[in-house]
Amino acid sequence: MADPQEESKPLLSRVRGGSGRDRPEGAPACRSVQVGPGTTARRDLCLDQAVVFIEDAIQYRSINHRMDASSLWLYRWYYSSLCQWILSFTIFLILFLAFIETPSSLTSTADVRYRPVPWEPPCGLTEGLEALCLLVFAADVSVKSYLVGWAQFRKNPWLLAYLVVLVVSLMDWIVSLSLVCHEPLRVRRPLRPFFLMQNSSMMKKTLKCIRRSLPEMASVGLLLAIHLCLFTMFGMLLFTSEKDAGQDKERLTYFRNLPEALTSLLVLLTTANNPDVMIPAYSKNRAYAIFFVAFTLIGSLFLMNLLTAIIYNQFRGYLMKSLQTSLLRRRLGTRAAYKVLSVTAAGEAHPEGVGVKPQDFLHVLQKVQLDSDHKQAIMEKVRSHGGDLLSADEFQELFDEFDKRVIKEPPPRPEYRSPFLRSAQFVFSHRYFNYLGNFMALGNLVTICAFLVLDADVPPEDRDDFVLGILNFVFILYYLLELLLKVLALGLRGYLAHPSNVFDGLLTVVLLVLEISTLAVYRFPHPGWKPEMLGLLSLWDMTRLVNMLLVFRFLRIIPSMKLMAVVASTIMDLIKNMRAFGGILVVVYYVFAIVGISLFRGVVVAPGNSRGPDGFHVVQGLRRWEGAQVCVLPCLHADAGCAPQPGPCQRFSALRELRAAGVLGQQLRRLCCESCAASPPLLGAPTPCLLWPPRPCVCCPQAALVTLWNVMVVNNWQVFLDAFRRYAGPWSKVYFVLWWLVSSVIWVNLFLALILENFLHKWDRRSHLQSLTGDSEATSQMTVELLFRDVLEEPTEEELMEKLSHHPHLQLCRTTGRA
Amino acid sequence: MADPQEESKPLLSRVRGGSGRDRPEGAPACRSVQVGPGTTARRDLCLDQAVVFIEDAIQYRSINHRMDASSLWLYRWYYSSLCQWILSFTIFLILFLAFIETPSSLTSTADVRYRPVPWEPPCGLTEGLEALCLLVFAADVSVKSYLVGWAQFRKNPWLLAYLVVLVVSLMDWIVSLSLVCHEPLRVRRPLRPFFLMQNSSMMKKTLKCIRRSLPEMASVGLLLAIHLCLFTMFGMLLFTSEKDAGQDKERLTYFRNLPEALTSLLVLLTTANNPDVMIPAYSKNRAYAIFFVAFTLIGSLFLMNLLTAIIYNQFRGYLMKSLQTSLLRRRLGTRAAYKVLSVTAAGEAHPEGVGVKPQDFLHVLQKVQLDSDHKQAIMEKVRSHGGDLLSADEFQELFDEFDKRVIKEPPPRPEYRSPFLRSAQFVFSHRYFNYLGNFMALGNLVTICAFLVLDADVPPEDRDDFVLGILNFVFILYYLLELLLKVLALGLRGYLAHPSNVFDGLLTVVLLVLEISTLAVYRFPHPGWKPEMLGLLSLWDMTRLVNMLLVFRFLRIIPSMKLMAVVASTIMDLIKNMRAFGGILVVVYYVFAIVGISLFRGVVVAPGNSRGPDGFHVVQGLRRWEGAQVCVLPCLHADAGCAPQPGPCQRFSALRELRAAGVLGQQLRRLCCESCAASPPLLGAPTPCLLWPPRPCVCCPQAALVTLWNVMVVNNWQVFLDAFRRYAGPWSKVYFVLWWLVSSVIWVNLFLALILENFLHKWDRRSHLQSLTGDSEATSQMTVELLFRDVLEEPTEEELMEKLSHHPHLQLCRTTGRA
Repeated sequence: MADPQEESKPLLSRVRGGSGRDRPEGAPACRSVQVGPGTTARRDLCLDQAVVFIEDAIQYRSINHRMDASSLWLYRWYYSSLCQWILSFTIFLILFLAFIETPSSLTSTADVRYRPVPWEPPCGLTEGLEALCLLVFAADVSVKSYLVGWAQFRKNPWLLAYLVVLVVSLMDWIVSLSLVCHEPLRVRRPLRPFFLMQNSSMMKKTLKCIRRSLPEMASVGLLLAIHLCLFTMFGMLLFTSEKDAGQDKERLTYFRNLPEALTSLLVLLTTANNPDVMIPAYSKNRAYAIFFVAFTLIGSLFLMNLLTAIIYNQFRGYLMKSLQTSLLRRRLGTRAAYKVLSVTAAGEAHPEGVGVKPQDFLHVLQKVQLDSDHKQAIMEKVRSHGGDLLSADEFQELFDEFDKRVIKEPPPRPEYRSPFLRSAQFVFSHRYFNYLGNFMALGNLVTICAFLVLDADVPPEDRDDFVLGILNFVFILYYLLELLLKVLALGLRGYLAHPSNVFDGLLTVVLLVLEISTLAVYRFPHPGWKPEMLGLLSLWDMTRLVNMLLVFRFLRIIPSMKLMAVVASTIMDLIKNMRAFGGILVVVYYVFAIVGISLFRGVVVAPGNSRGPDGFHVVQGLRRWEGAQVCVLPCLHADAGCAPQPGPCQRFSALRELRAAGVLGQQLRRLCCESCAASPPLLGAPTPCLLWPPRPCVCCPQAALVTLWNVMVVNNWQVFLDAFRRYAGPWSKVYFVLWWLVSSVIWVNLFLALILENFLHKWDRRSHLQSLTGDSEATSQMTVELLFRDVLEEPTEEELMEKLSHHPHLQLCRTTGRA
Repeated sequence: MADPQEESKPLLSRVRGGSGRDRPEGAPACRSVQVGPGTTARRDLCLDQAVVFIEDAIQYRSINHRMDASSLWLYRWYYSSLCQWILSFTIFLILFLAFIETPSSLTSTADVRYRPVPWEPPCGLTEGLEALCLLVFAADVSVKSYLVGWAQFRKNPWLLAYLVVLVVSLMDWIVSLSLVCHEPLRVRRPLRPFFLMQNSSMMKKTLKCIRRSLPEMASVGLLLAIHLCLFTMFGMLLFTSEKDAGQDKERLTYFRNLPEALTSLLVLLTTANNPDVMIPAYSKNRAYAIFFVAFTLIGSLFLMNLLTAIIYNQFRGYLMKSLQTSLLRRRLGTRAAYKVLSVTAAGEAHPEGVGVKPQDFLHVLQKVQLDSDHKQAIMEKVRSHGGDLLSADEFQELFDEFDKRVIKEPPPRPEYRSPFLRSAQFVFSHRYFNYLGNFMALGNLVTICAFLVLDADVPPEDRDDFVLGILNFVFILYYLLELLLKVLALGLRGYLAHPSNVFDGLLTVVLLVLEISTLAVYRFPHPGWKPEMLGLLSLWDMTRLVNMLLVFRFLRIIPSMKLMAVVASTIMDLIKNMRAFGGILVVVYYVFAIVGISLFRGVVVAPGNSRGPDGFHVVQGLRRWEGAQVCVLPCLHADAGCAPQPGPCQRFSALRELRAAGVLGQQLRRLCCESCAASPPLLGAPTPCLLWPPRPCVCCPQAALVTLWNVMVVNNWQVFLDAFRRYAGPWSKVYFVLWWLVSSVIWVNLFLALILENFLHKWDRRSHLQSLTGDSEATSQMTVELLFRDVLEEPTEEELMEKLSHHPHLQLCRTTGRA
C-alpha cells in the first residue's frame, strides 16, 4: 500500500495500520481489496485509473479530475486524439473566419488596379460556422468543468475566463444576427484568440512568465520614458526657431511641437529615422550630431539592451519554474498510478506486498495511448525486470524512457550473392558516394547560378534555354541513377529509413515527372528552342520550377557539414520548442489586426475608380468609401496645400518623363501631388492625392498582417505613424506604439532570450558530453523539458504525498492525510 | 626564505639545505644576506624590488622585467604618472592629427553653402607634430624593450609589432617630407590606432577574446552566407521577368541581376529596406510576401540571434580566462614581494624566519604609488597585526584591501549652540527636505514643458517670455536658498562630500551667474519684455540656456528613486567597465574612416558653385573636384537617362510649388532630376543632378565619422551602398559591408554580451547578498575584476612557485627551479 523504503517510519506504521481487510467505509472504490467475486469490476476500475494517471503523467496534465468509472470514460474520450483534433480544427476554423468575413479581400494581388470586387459572404454563412464553433467550445467547457468538479472550477481562472468569453461571444453573436450583420462593432472577434490560448498549457505558462516580468520591464520602461522626455525637452530647446531666422524651418521639422518631437525621438530610439532626423541640424552645425548620437547610444545601446538582459533574466527563472511544475505533474501522475496499482497488488496475492505487479503494469500499459516505440521500450524493460513487485523508485525509473528518443535499428541491407553486386553495394553505400552526390548538387547549383548571371542582361525574348535545359536533363538523370543505385545498395526500406534520402528521393521523383512532362509537351531541346506555350505552364515556367526545385534539393548538403548540422539542429530544436512563443505572437497579431481593422476601417482609404495615364491609378478627393477593401497610404505631405483645380492634370507630362528617366515607383509615389487636382473635391475639403500601387494599411486582415509585420520589423515605421496620424487622428499613434512595444520590444526580446537559453545550455551540455564521451549525437534532439531536466529539482517524497493526499476526487493517501 | 607551511615536504628540505650562510655564488644580490657593513645597499635594493613587485601586483603588470638597481629606477620612472600621462597625451595627439590634416574641414556647419574655404595647414606643421609623437613612441619602445630584456622582447608579439609599426611610420614620414606632402598615399595614418591599442592591456585582452571567437562566428557567418545565396537564387528565379510581360519591370528592380539581388537581400537581413523591397512583388501577388517574411524570420531572427548567442558564449569564457591571467599576475607580484622581503627578514634577525617583518613592509608601502585611502587601510591592518612575522597567506590577504572600496566617514556636522539653529539643522538635513527639492525641480520641469507646448504654435516674434522669466527667477532663488540651507545644516565640507550635492551646487551657481548677467544686461522682466540683443547672447538664447540647465538639473532626481538608482548604477558600472570596448570601437572607427577617406576622396563629390532658386544649391555635371571637402550624396536613380539640355532649368516652377505645398527637403531631394539640365555637361557624360543639403559622405574625418555612424546604426544603409556603387564602382560595397559586419554585427553584439554578463551577474549577486544581509549598497560599485572574482580560481602554490622560478632576471626560487 505504501513503500516502507521510502516513507518515514512513523508514517509507515500508520499506513500499515490502515491497510488490510479492516478498511473503514467511505474509502474510494478502488481501495476495497477483498478477494472474491465482485472485485473484478473494482480491479478494472483501478487499472483504468492507473491508465488515466499514466496518460496524465505523459502529457503533463493535472491529475485533479473525477475518477469514477463513467468520468474516466468521459475523460479518456475527451483527451482522445479525435476529440482533440476536432477541438484544434474548431479553433483553427474560428480564427480563420476573419479572412473570409466581410472586411476581407480574397484576391491574390494586393494592387486594386487588377483586383476584382471582393466576394462578400451572405449574412449568416460565417455566422453559422461561428455558431458551430461556439457550440463545440460550449461542449468543451462543460466537459472540462464537469471533469474537474465544481470546487476546482471555481478556483481555475482560465476556466472561468473561458466561460465568460464564451458567454460574451454568444451574446454578441445573437446581437449580430438580430441586426442582420450590420452591427457597428463585433466584440467577439478580438476575443477569438483566447480559445487558442486556453488550449495550450505551454502558452499559458509563457504568458505567466511574461506577466511576472512586466514589473521589471516597467522599470526600464520608466527609465526609457524619462530618457525620452528629457531629451525631447533638450531637443526642443536646442532646435527651437530663433527669433530672427526664417530659413532654418526645415531643421525644425522634427521638433516643431511636443508631440512631433516626442514621436521623432521615439522613432529614433528604434533608429528607424536615423539619418533623416539628424541631417537638418547637422547641416547647420556639426556639433548637433552629438545630441543624436548620445540619444541613440543611451537609448538604443544601453537601455534597450538592458531591457533584453532583464527579459532574459526573468524569463530564465520563470520558465524554469514552469518546467518544475511540469515535472511535478509527471511525478504526481506516476506516483498516483503506482498507488492505485500497488493497492491492487496488495489486495490479491501479496497481502504484505508494497509494490506493483509487473503483469498489472503491462496490462495497464497496453491500454495507455502512447506511441508504439516508447511503449515497446518500456514493456521490454518491465519484462526484463522479472516477476518481482516493482518498487516506487523502479516504477518511476520506467517512465524516464518517455524522454529518451528511441533509436531505431536500420533495416538490414539486402544480401546479394553475386560478388559484382556485393562490391557495387559496398561502393554505393559508401559515404564517398554521398559526397559525390553533394558535389553534383553543388555543380548543378553553380550552373543555374551561372545561367542566371549570363541571362541577366539578355532580354527575355532573346534567351536560349537550350544549354541549361540539356544540363538540367543530365543532372536529373544523374539524380535518378543515384536514387536507383542507393535503393540497390540499401534496399527500399533501408533507403527510406534516412530522412535525407526521403527528401532526395521525393524531389528527384517530382523533378523527373516535371522533366518528362516538359519533354512530352515541348519535345527534345535543340538550339533556338523557343516553343509556343502549350498546356498549363510555358516552357519558361517549367524551367523555372525545375530550377527552384534543384536549388531546394541542394539543402541536402546541410547534414553533411558537421558545423552546419549543429547549428541547423539547434534551429530545428528551437522551432519545436518555440511553438508556445509562436502561438503568443499569433494571438497578439490577431488581436491587433482585428482591433486595427475596426479602428481604421474606412478612415485612411479613399480610392476612386478613374485611372490616370501611365497605368497609375489617380484618386481624387477624400471620400469615405465604406465598402472598399482597398488600402491606401496617402502620399505623405502632399495634401497640405494642394489646391483643387478644374480640368485635367496638367503635369502628367513631367511625370511620364520622370518615369522614362528611370525614376521608379517608390519615388514616383512621392510626386503624386503633381498629378492631382483633376476634379473638384467632393466634400469641399482640400483634396489629398493618392497614387497606386500604395503601401498596405490596416483595413482587411490580409493587409493588416503585412502592415503589422512591417511595423514589427521597425524599419520605416515612422511612415505608418505619420500616415495614420493624418487620416485617423493623433491617437492612432498609440495603436502603433503599443504594437511596436508588444511585438518588437517584448516579443523579439523574449525570442532572443529563448535562443540564448537554448543555445547556451546546449553548448554547455555538448562540451560537457564531448569531454565525457566524445559523442555529440546524444544531444541533438531534445525538448524544452529535457533541456532543463538536469537543472530541475526532483520533487521530494513528502511533497508528492502531500499533493496526493489533497486529491479532490480520490483518497489516495487517506491515512497520511488524516494523520 | 620559503614558507614550510605551504611547500611540500621534500621541497622544503631542499630549500632549507640551500638557505643560510653557505649560499653559492652567482645568486642575485638581494639574496646574499650576510649581516655586516655593505649590506645596507643590498637591503635597500631588496626593498626597492618589493616596492616594484607590489606596484606590479596592483596594476596587474607582468613581473618579468630587469631587477637591478638602475633598471628599477628606470622602471618606476617609466610607470610614473607623469611619464604615463605624456604617453597618453602623445597617443591622443597623434590620433587627433587626422582632424587637422589636409583632407579635413574645421567648420561648424556641414552645409557647403555656408562653409568657408577650409584652412590647410602648411606642409611640415602636422608632420612636425607627428615626428615629435613618433620620437616619444621610439623612446617608449626602447625603454620597454630594455626593461623586459632581449629574450622577452623576441617572444612578445606586441612589442615586435610596435617596433615594426614605428619603423614603417618613420619611413612613410620620410617619404612624405621628401615629396613635400604631396604623396599619393599615407600608409602611416591607418596604423596610428595601433599606438592606442598597445598601451591598454584590457584592450589587448578583449582583442584576444574577439580573435578567438572568430572561428565560431565564421561558422554562423557561413550559414548566413548560404542562407543569403539560396534565397537570392530563389528570388531571382521567382521574380524573373516573364517573357510576355513588360509591365512588371518595377517588381524586378531589386532582383535585376545577381549583385543587385544579393545586395537587396543582404540589406533586408538588417531589415533596412524592409517594406520597399517587398512592396512591388506583394502588389502583384500577396503570396510573395511569404518569401520575404521567411527570409527575415530565418535570417534576422534566427541566425542573427544565434550569432549573438555565440558571441555571448565565447566572450563569457574568454573574458574570464583573461581575468584569470590578471589574478595570476597579482598573486605573482605579491608572492615575489613576499619572497624578497622574507629574504631580508631571514638575513637580519630571524635566521629561522619564514615571513616578512611588518616594519619592512610598512617601509615598502610608504614608497609604493597608491592612493592614500587604500594605503591607509592596509597600514592600519599591518599595524593591528603586531610585531610577528607575516606569513605568505597573511601577506596576500593584506592585498585584498585593494579591491575593496574605502568608505569615507562623512565629515562631522557643525554644532550649533542656539536651539533654533539646531532645529533648523535637523529640518534641513532631513531627507524630506531633499524630496521637497526634487519636487521643486519637477515643478520647474513641468513649467518649462508647459511653456514649450504653449509657445509651439506662436511665431517667435510674438512670444512673451515674461511669465517664464519670472518663474525661472523664482525657481533659481529657491535653489540658491536650498544650497545655503544645506550648507548651514551640513557644513561646507559635509555638503561637498555628496556627489549629488556637488552636482546641484555647481548648476545652481552657474544658473545664478546666468540669471544675474541676464538681469544686468536686459533689466527686470516686465509684460511685453522684448529687448534688443545686447552683449554676447540674446535674451532668447539666455532663456534657452537657463532652461536647458534647469532640465539638466532635474537629473538629481535619479538617485532618489531606488529602482532607477539600481539601473543607473548598472549603467555607470558598465561605462567604467567598457572602456576597453569603447577603445576597440575607436580603433576600428579610426581605421575605417582613414581608409575610407583615401579610397573615396574626390570620387563621389562634385558640387559646382551655382545656386538654384529657393535657396537650393543645384549642381551640374560630374566633375572630379579634387580639392573639395564637400560631401554629396547624388539624387538616386536620377542620373540614368537625364539628357543634357541647353538653357536654364524649365521646371523650377514645379519645384517651388511643391515646396509651397509642404513637400520637405527629403522628398525634394528625390525630385532633383527635374531641376537638372541647366548647363551642358562638362565631360560629355550624362549629367547627374545633385541638390543641397545632402547626406554626408566619406571624404573628411568629420564627415566620415557621421557616415560610419549612420551605417553602423544600419537604418537606410542601402542608400550609402547605392550611392557609392554609382560613383566609386561596385567594389565600394565591400567597404561598407565590412564596416557593417565589424561595427553593427560584431561590436554591437559584443556590447550586448557585456551588458548581459554584467547585469546578470550583478542581479544574481544582489539577490544573493540581499538574502544574506539585506544590503544592496555593497555591490553598487565594482570593476570587471571584482565582478568575476568569486568565479575565478585562485592559482595554486605550485603554479606560483613554477612561475617565480622562471623569472628571467631574478632567481627568486632558484633552488626550487634546480630541483
